[in-house]
Amino acid sequence: MNASVRIIGIDPGLRRCGWGVIETQGNRLSFVAAGTLTPPTDGALADRLAVLFAGLGDVLDRFNPHEAAVEETFVNQGARSALILGQARGVALLTPAARGVPVAEYAANLVKKSVVGTGHAEKGQVELMVRTLMPAAQFKGADAADALAIAICHAHHRVAAQRLRALA
Amino acid sequence: MNASVRIIGIDPGLRRCGWGVIETQGNRLSFVAAGTLTPPTDGALADRLAVLFAGLGDVLDRFNPHEAAVEETFVNQGARSALILGQARGVALLTPAARGVPVAEYAANLVKKSVVGTGHAEKGQVELMVRTLMPAAQFKGADAADALAIAICHAHHRVAAQRLRALA
Repeated sequence: MNASVRIIGIDPGLRRCGWGVIETQGNRLSFVAAGTLTPPTDGALADRLAVLFAGLGDVLDRFNPHEAAVEETFVNQGARSALILGQARGVALLTPAARGVPVAEYAANLVKKSVVGTGHAEKGQVELMVRTLMPAAQFKGADAADALAIAICHAHHRVAAQRLRALA
Repeated sequence: MNASVRIIGIDPGLRRCGWGVIETQGNRLSFVAAGTLTPPTDGALADRLAVLFAGLGDVLDRFNPHEAAVEETFVNQGARSALILGQARGVALLTPAARGVPVAEYAANLVKKSVVGTGHAEKGQVELMVRTLMPAAQFKGADAADALAIAICHAHHRVAAQRLRALA
């Protein structure tokens, strides 16, 4: 019998950072919790990042996931936007890693493919499929839905990813 | 008499992150310590960021600066490079802020102007002027020199920056 593995998915952002925790056991997925962190939009950038770090740290302490997954950010808005997003993403990657939780990264279209079946899904479709795959899930909003989709993607790919890491 | 203020300057980077600690009292600057952190260049990005976080945290614990300063990254290499740099920069901003150390940011050309007198200095000129301003400084390499220059820039601008923040 496979042991149950608890996974947190994180959809990084400085203004809205979605998170979603699921459990996977064999082919079974179950919802644990999900939400959206909204650090203050004013104040020094460093302080806003510290609020994000503390908020994600709280979530990790409350739900103790074994593994984390973060979406690879797709950058299509020029270097300045990429820098800002990168700063929030650095904190999202760091927070679990600093606690010893391994962090996997997945391309956005692989996340969508894992949940919706195609790499070109709309936001609404992702949320609909997350609710279909986990009917007991209780969450609000697209950021939490995306974070749960990232966790589901990791549940589907984690064994293959571990084998690849072992070969590297 | 003005109290002495201890400042850390950080030149963020995922492969090489310079840091430099100085003390300022009135118009006097004195060198405390400086170095370069070099996280491993292989392994998962999240783990490399965690090494950077732990390394900067060690430096902060050892030297207990009152204030921190980080250079505003100049991005001229496209969105992908900006994202990578942003991730390291997010960790460099976060690490002092998470300890309650206020973090100021300065544009690269203001840092150069503060130390060399012009915004278009070469790396070698920055290092030369840092050594001229603080003859007792013992450090190696351009990254540590840049970090000390950022700390010196903050020493020159911190009072004005605090007044601006108080007005905001």
